[in-house]
This record gives sequence, C-alpha cells and structure tokens, in this order.
Amino acid sequence: MEKFMIIGERIHCIAPPIRKAIAERDPEPILKRAIEQLDAGAHVIDFNIGPAERDGAEIMTWGVQLLQSELNNVPLALDTANKDALEAGLKVYDRTHGKPIINSADNGGRKHLIELAGEYDAAIIALCAKEGIPADKDETMAYCTELIEAGAMAGLDPETDMYFDPLCLVIKGMQDKQMDVLAAIREMTEMGLKTTGGVSNVSNGCPKHIRPILDSNWIAMAMANGFSSGIINPLDKEMMQAIKSCDIIRNASLYADSYLEVQELGFEYK
Amino acid sequence: MEKFMIIGERIHCIAPPIRKAIAERDPEPILKRAIEQLDAGAHVIDFNIGPAERDGAEIMTWGVQLLQSELNNVPLALDTANKDALEAGLKVYDRTHGKPIINSADNGGRKHLIELAGEYDAAIIALCAKEGIPADKDETMAYCTELIEAGAMAGLDPETDMYFDPLCLVIKGMQDKQMDVLAAIREMTEMGLKTTGGVSNVSNGCPKHIRPILDSNWIAMAMANGFSSGIINPLDKEMMQAIKSCDIIRNASLYADSYLEVQELGFEYK
Repeated sequence: MEKFMIIGERIHCIAPPIRKAIAERDPEPILKRAIEQLDAGAHVIDFNIGPAERDGAEIMTWGVQLLQSELNNVPLALDTANKDALEAGLKVYDRTHGKPIINSADNGGRKHLIELAGEYDAAIIALCAKEGIPADKDETMAYCTELIEAGAMAGLDPETDMYFDPLCLVIKGMQDKQMDVLAAIREMTEMGLKTTGGVSNVSNGCPKHIRPILDSNWIAMAMANGFSSGIINPLDKEMMQAIKSCDIIRNASLYADSYLEVQELGFEYK
Repeated sequence: MEKFMIIGERIHCIAPPIRKAIAERDPEPILKRAIEQLDAGAHVIDFNIGPAERDGAEIMTWGVQLLQSELNNVPLALDTANKDALEAGLKVYDRTHGKPIINSADNGGRKHLIELAGEYDAAIIALCAKEGIPADKDETMAYCTELIEAGAMAGLDPETDMYFDPLCLVIKGMQDKQMDVLAAIREMTEMGLKTTGGVSNVSNGCPKHIRPILDSNWIAMAMANGFSSGIINPLDKEMMQAIKSCDIIRNASLYADSYLEVQELGFEYK
C-alpha cells in the first residue's frame, strides 16, 4: 500500500496574512507557511486564491512560480474555481516532481474543469457532489461514476490522474451521514480509485480542544477504509500522529520506535 | 449501532498489587482498581486470576462476591483457564445486569470452556486461534466458524452470547498482519457477530510514549471495521478519546460539545 498523501491546506486566501501577502505580492508569508507545512510532513502544497475574479491569472502565475522556484519545484494543488487562473498556473507549472493538481472539479458548475485537466495533462480532485449534500452513499457513488466517465472522456486515467473526494461532512448537524462517507471511501478504494477530502470540515463548529481529536479519529477510520490522501493542516499534531500511525498499521511505512519523530514524510524542498 | 463495550483489563494477577491482594484476600486494592476503571468508563470488569491451580475456585468465588456485593452487581468477565475456578465463579454470579462473561475459550486447549458457558448460560469470549498465530485472515475465519458451531452445539446464541476475538497482534514483528486482523473484524461484523480483543497487545514492546498513540489509532481503525468491544485500560486517555470519538462518528452516541468530558459511558456502580 502507498503512503498517505498529505496536501497542506494552510496557504488559503481566507487567512488574513495570506490574503494580505497575495494582495501585496509579498513572498515571505507565503513561503513561510509552505516551509512550515513541508517541514511538518506535507507532500503537496495547496495554493488557494479564492475566486480572484479580477487578477486571478496574474496571482496564480506569481504564486506557482514563487513556490516552485524557491522550493525545489514543490508539488502544488492549484485551488480556485477561476478557469483563467488555473490555466495560467498550469502553463508555468514545472513538472519535475509530477503533474499539477487542480482543486477541484465537481458534478455541477465546476465539471468543465475536468476538460481543462485533460487539455493540460494535469491531475484533478473530483468532488462527488452537485448542489448541496448528497443524500446518501448511493448518490455520492453515482456522482463518482459520472466523474470517472467525464475524466475518461477528457483523456484522464481515473486511477492515477483523479482524486475522488466523497465530501467530508460536519459532525454537528450531519452526524448520521458519517458512516455513509466512510462507506463511499471504501467503495472508491475497492474500485481502485484514489481518494481525498478536506478533513477539518468534520469538526467544523466544535470546541477548539475537541477538533484535533475528532478529526484525527475520523481520519484513522477513513484510512481503515482506504482513504489515500487528505487536504489537512500538517501542523495539527494529533492528525499527523494518526496518519503516521495508520500508515504503520496499514504496512505502508516500516515501523521504527522513532516513527513519530522522523520527518521523512514530507517533500524534500531543500 | 450499539455503543462500544469497554472491558477493563486492570485487575490482573500479573500486576504485583493485585497478586498480593488476591493472595491476602485483601479487598481494598481490588475494589480501588475496579472503581477507577468504572469511573473512567468501563462497562465490564475483567477479573484475571491466572491459572490459580491450587485455590482458583476459592479465589474466584471471593472476587466475584466481593466485586458484585460492593459495586451494584457489576458485570464481570471471569478470566482464567481454570475450569473449576470458572465454575465456582459462575455459581455465585449475580445476573441482575446480565450474564457473566467467560474469558476465554479458543480452538485449542480451551475449547471445552464453550460447553461450560452453555451449561451455565454464560457469555464467552472466543479467541479465533488454536496454537500460535493464525497464518492469515482465512485461518482466523476458519477458527471463527468452528467456534460458532461449537457455541451452537453448546446451546449458545453466537450473535449474543459470544464475543469473537481475532487475536490482536503485536506491531513489532507482525506489522504485515494488521490489515488481516482488521479484515477479520470486518468479516465477523458482517456476519452479525460481536467482536473483542486485547488491544494493548498491538503496541507491546514499543516505547512508552508511543503505546497510547498506536493503540488508540488501531482501535479507531478497528471500530471503522465494526469492532464492538475491547479489553482495554480505561485509564488510557487517548484510548478513551478514540473510543468516544469513534462512537460519535459511528452515530452510536449523540454528539455534544462535552462528549469527551461526560462520564456517562461506564457502568453505574453507585
């Protein structure tokens, strides 16, 4: 089994220091958060610029070139619904360490981004949802099948170029749907697909001291069902302990007494 | 889904204070450990007297009567391979809160204890192993099937009177077998069976600071596969956080912001 792939979520335009850094094209806060995440074990850095309707293409070009030129062509997930911005980022992306990842398509208004991935030979995260929350596992899997077809039509290999996101749901309000999400991950895994998702959504609205406990136990349960990747905060200690421990239990990394301390998980940016 | 059942493992004759208390028939250390475990959330107290070849029947009688008379007829697992001792304990057991649990039968030298359970209308933990470690999941499941048959022959209901133990294996040395154990738990669960196991064996020989992390992630992965009960240390904070969180995710207990703090899990002994 392959090791779990960690996509670091912390370069997000909703965070005030990142929003400011993007607006001012200030490299320092962006690089700082990237390095922190890589040091903590991230394999891929998500670069979320929001809709960026005015100058998305310019921002994405700037960010991709900044991060890759400073950090050994670090693998990136280009995170926006703005097609022009994605296209600009894809054009300047250095593929030394593999294909860029588009984050993300869905079965609704973002479905056309699958074609973009095909056109630029990129990987893509495919959110198995259309509008709102799927009613049950069957609806999620129906979307998954549609996304596989769309990927194949666009020339993608669904098993290697696509990461299927079952949509992580918030416990507070959607507690009764959690097992459906885990069952969807299992079904996708059994189909030979890679999976991912924004895990911190699980504990959204929960007290601060509970969030890492709930999220890390959720990811352990998801990894037991084959979950292969997550968009997470690599600085969350409980989360990283869970990922490392479950990779040991899944026999994806070799046990050593020092397995929690070793920093061999992340991308080597130096 | 039912809540996870916690069997507290800490009254064990290998622990020096317990060994001494048993030898001297001193109630205090026994009751102290029982109360600590119940306060921490245990539903059942395991009373492990070892082989106790000389005076097993007397010790078991004493311990069962002591624990039950002082602690509201607390549910107990009678833990020994000594048939006379088990029989003595079963005779004096008060069933106000359900059947006694025999810990444990297996497919080898302890298989006859299944008949004892049938004779005394007791529940029993059935270890799916014969001699040594099962080679793979198929061997574990073959033993499971044999134990179901033996249980049915003895008049037990395999779905309610038996707890099937897939044999939790130590990571150090048997890392590559962990997914087989988890798959066995899944298969047993899909067959409608209840499962249990001695989880702390997973991290046996690991550094002290790692053990609760590895064990708690193992139990989260096991609970994702349906694991319904465990023989654990309820004073292990990480373990209890994992069990409570996974019960929330499995929708077995209702989410509240205070779910980690509330002590409503255990048996009410007062």
